[in-house]
Amino acid sequence: MEKLTNVGRRRMLVSTGSVVALAGLGGAAHADTGAADPGAAAGPAAKPLPGYANWKDADSLIVHSANTIETRRTAFGNSVITPTDRLFVRNNVAPPTDANMMKEPDSWTLEVSGVAKPRSFTVAELKTLGLAAVPMVLQCSGNGRAWFPHKPSGTQWTVGAAGCVIFTGVPVKAVLEAVGGMTEGMVYMTSTGGEAIPQGLDPNSIKVERSVPISAIEDAILAWELNGEALPLAHGGPLRIVVPGYTGVNSIKYIKHLAFTKEQSMAKIQQSSYRWTPVGGKPSPSEDSIWEMPVKSWINSPSDPDQTIPAGRVQISGVAMGGMTAAKSIEVSVNGGKDWQKAQFVGPDLGKYAWREFVFSADLAAGTHELACRATNEAGDTQPEARRENNRGYVNNSWRDHMVVVKVA
Amino acid sequence: MEKLTNVGRRRMLVSTGSVVALAGLGGAAHADTGAADPGAAAGPAAKPLPGYANWKDADSLIVHSANTIETRRTAFGNSVITPTDRLFVRNNVAPPTDANMMKEPDSWTLEVSGVAKPRSFTVAELKTLGLAAVPMVLQCSGNGRAWFPHKPSGTQWTVGAAGCVIFTGVPVKAVLEAVGGMTEGMVYMTSTGGEAIPQGLDPNSIKVERSVPISAIEDAILAWELNGEALPLAHGGPLRIVVPGYTGVNSIKYIKHLAFTKEQSMAKIQQSSYRWTPVGGKPSPSEDSIWEMPVKSWINSPSDPDQTIPAGRVQISGVAMGGMTAAKSIEVSVNGGKDWQKAQFVGPDLGKYAWREFVFSADLAAGTHELACRATNEAGDTQPEARRENNRGYVNNSWRDHMVVVKVA
Repeated sequence: MEKLTNVGRRRMLVSTGSVVALAGLGGAAHADTGAADPGAAAGPAAKPLPGYANWKDADSLIVHSANTIETRRTAFGNSVITPTDRLFVRNNVAPPTDANMMKEPDSWTLEVSGVAKPRSFTVAELKTLGLAAVPMVLQCSGNGRAWFPHKPSGTQWTVGAAGCVIFTGVPVKAVLEAVGGMTEGMVYMTSTGGEAIPQGLDPNSIKVERSVPISAIEDAILAWELNGEALPLAHGGPLRIVVPGYTGVNSIKYIKHLAFTKEQSMAKIQQSSYRWTPVGGKPSPSEDSIWEMPVKSWINSPSDPDQTIPAGRVQISGVAMGGMTAAKSIEVSVNGGKDWQKAQFVGPDLGKYAWREFVFSADLAAGTHELACRATNEAGDTQPEARRENNRGYVNNSWRDHMVVVKVA
Repeated sequence: MEKLTNVGRRRMLVSTGSVVALAGLGGAAHADTGAADPGAAAGPAAKPLPGYANWKDADSLIVHSANTIETRRTAFGNSVITPTDRLFVRNNVAPPTDANMMKEPDSWTLEVSGVAKPRSFTVAELKTLGLAAVPMVLQCSGNGRAWFPHKPSGTQWTVGAAGCVIFTGVPVKAVLEAVGGMTEGMVYMTSTGGEAIPQGLDPNSIKVERSVPISAIEDAILAWELNGEALPLAHGGPLRIVVPGYTGVNSIKYIKHLAFTKEQSMAKIQQSSYRWTPVGGKPSPSEDSIWEMPVKSWINSPSDPDQTIPAGRVQISGVAMGGMTAAKSIEVSVNGGKDWQKAQFVGPDLGKYAWREFVFSADLAAGTHELACRATNEAGDTQPEARRENNRGYVNNSWRDHMVVVKVA
């Protein structure tokens, strides 16, 4: 029962008519989460959700800090789309504090430059230019960092700095058309967030500005909606650029400026952070930037270390993503990667940037079992056994690191 | 701005740091909804959400009664999936009040009969038998009733007794396999809900029991999850049978008994309610039951009667469903159905039982415009101009009834 008591707790309370308890959970104080959640013992001490995210489902989340909130591995469900109130949060800088920006989201303005006719657009104006809905994996560059043996600095995410969601907005290509196209010779699409820059500091040391190759315009959108609701502040509302297939840092929140540029941004977050720096090395702009995501998969159920499963038939399920191409196939091993068998995708195929749910039916005898999975994408890349080592612990897709050990009795 | 102030209000409050107000909205008292919501003036007086659904987003909903809650037309968004906290609720009888059923959902039991080896299963046992995730339109039989001119009794739904969601559970076929298949000669699949039957009443007058043709087993599932979360009581948790393509009443909530039968249920809800009874006629079991859904579509944006749209380019968007086959194409008219033009589907195709988002880009001059849409499905059926008249106002798919009138200035 433990697995079930730490998810969807709010709705269970509803069935008991405990309205007072519900109001408490919906508010700011979550100091009781640790006691209610057996999984929390293995993680960091339970922290309250920060104010801008206090509408989220605390029992489905691990609050690492006010800017880093992870989805529990046991809270993903099997319905492809990650509910917004369970979706991870990662901010490099605290969100803007303008009290009006979320009250009048249609008035938020975006400047567009590096184009034939530079101008600014309100969100209301962007909404007249086109409409696209993009199902995609949103995943922090550092997801899986917890398994790097050299203990990189940064949040110790396991699997939960990722979700599969639907962003809705206007295609960047439709905006480009409205401004007469890009200036000739542009190589990057550079997006700048609306976070406040404290006075007296070098803006480049703080500002959240990322450049991606110009090829990313093909599927990128400027989004004002997430999973059917107005894009919340916690996920970049009123307006976020979304670059499908790229790690989350490239999808700039509260975007204020979209520029087509010849050079990459001079911001620290572009120049030295989010680079493929060797372990122990110094970051350098000559190293590749953290951009595209590779093929990856992991098992979500069973995955609760506190759970003992009855011997017999078990449905092993999880998610598989292809990165820049669709996930094509998925294998499961119940003996730590010695033998592999083909598993089945279940549920809808939401396109190449989304993940697929998969299931593998296994008969497990009493004892301990190492469950692993590995995905292959349409490009023919198979998820590797070994992670790609790098100093900051980015982009871990090692199947061995993502293995789960389950107890069967 | 009015359109935007009545959706997602909770998350807007978060951006102002108004934790106290948030806790209030999350609780039981929604008496202030009418004042905050300009759309409410045209509808019924604002009622509070009932206890079992008080975690829902009040600002996205119209509470007709404790058992009938409708999604506002302006609250659907454009992301295909309807968020669970905006999904409509319709119960024929109040939900069961067993305080334990949602605390230990895996212990809920289902009896299976009319099969080679009748037995009962706990939800935990069902979870070992298989896994399927089904994206589908869930729609009340009475959706669109408000437009029937003879004013049928029942809730005056317009478009919002419908949503597109993902149910996850075990295929009925996998359960059938586990019990050695159906007894020979069975014609119907009959499901019984777990609602309490008050003593002294004829159970058939109260019980929520529906029979559907045996062909429905092909895609039916027993679901314990909705949009990635444990199925809430308001939507039939711990366990609901889901019959894709059929109107909502056929997907029995809190299912306690799944029977394969030679005859249709003797319950009133099967014998006389939910029949294609002529206007003014008496219901009879000789009339067809309300089962499969037909092709249907409607515009959601723009749709706010209080909104005035700036003249110029407008993205007209909505949803189109095919019923028992996929929606194949969609047309839009901006002059009340005189002329039609092809509109575009946008976003993911979630399969034949889901709806598709569509968009049509129009240049609207100042004045009043009648916006209509009509869908065609893979079977070649086109949404009709006229509703199919019937006494209780079921299954309205008239494109003319669903037309919206917009003011442009």
